Amino acid sequence: MTPGYTDRDEADAEARLVALRASIDNIDAALVHLLAERFKFTQTVGHLKARAGWPAADPEREARQVARLRSLAAESGLDPVFAEKFVGFIVAEVIRHHEAIADAD
Amino acid sequence: MTPGYTDRDEADAEARLVALRASIDNIDAALVHLLAERFKFTQTVGHLKARAGWPAADPEREARQVARLRSLAAESGLDPVFAEKFVGFIVAEVIRHHEAIADAD
Repeated sequence: MTPGYTDRDEADAEARLVALRASIDNIDAALVHLLAERFKFTQTVGHLKARAGWPAADPEREARQVARLRSLAAESGLDPVFAEKFVGFIVAEVIRHHEAIADAD
Repeated sequence: MTPGYTDRDEADAEARLVALRASIDNIDAALVHLLAERFKFTQTVGHLKARAGWPAADPEREARQVARLRSLAAESGLDPVFAEKFVGFIVAEVIRHHEAIADAD
């Protein structure tokens, strides 16, 4: 605890924490719904690729996505290193889906 | 390539891929902007916690977040296992930020 921090300060902090968490929960619900839509699109891409015999991964597309999202991150105040990790996390899941589709089709 | 797949099918698939990727890129821009806002809120939480001397991690809150987001994922057609991995990925980054704030404050 910071020196001079009072019980009143702690009660204020608790109230602010509750409000911040409610906003974080709203953002998380939006993120989940957007991710659900994103995976619908990438599932369709997976079926297109499987039918055409194209590979699941596309390193050039991924490099363009990373560059664009790092730039959008910098503009919006998000750590570009985190944005790059995030793209890697999502793309790994998408490739796993594409491979499963190619195996099943 | 699927048997009976023609050059015309391939041209159609390429056009659909371009359109799908444009939608995916729009969703990614929205995700990056929401994540930027989410980290602003969690940075504020980090400062509140550091001033109050509260720990960076809160396993009970995280368990509630996981349960809620799994449920929202199931409703919206997102794989709940992926939703749980996603929460873990974001929370790990947030805790890393909170620890950095506690060390700096």
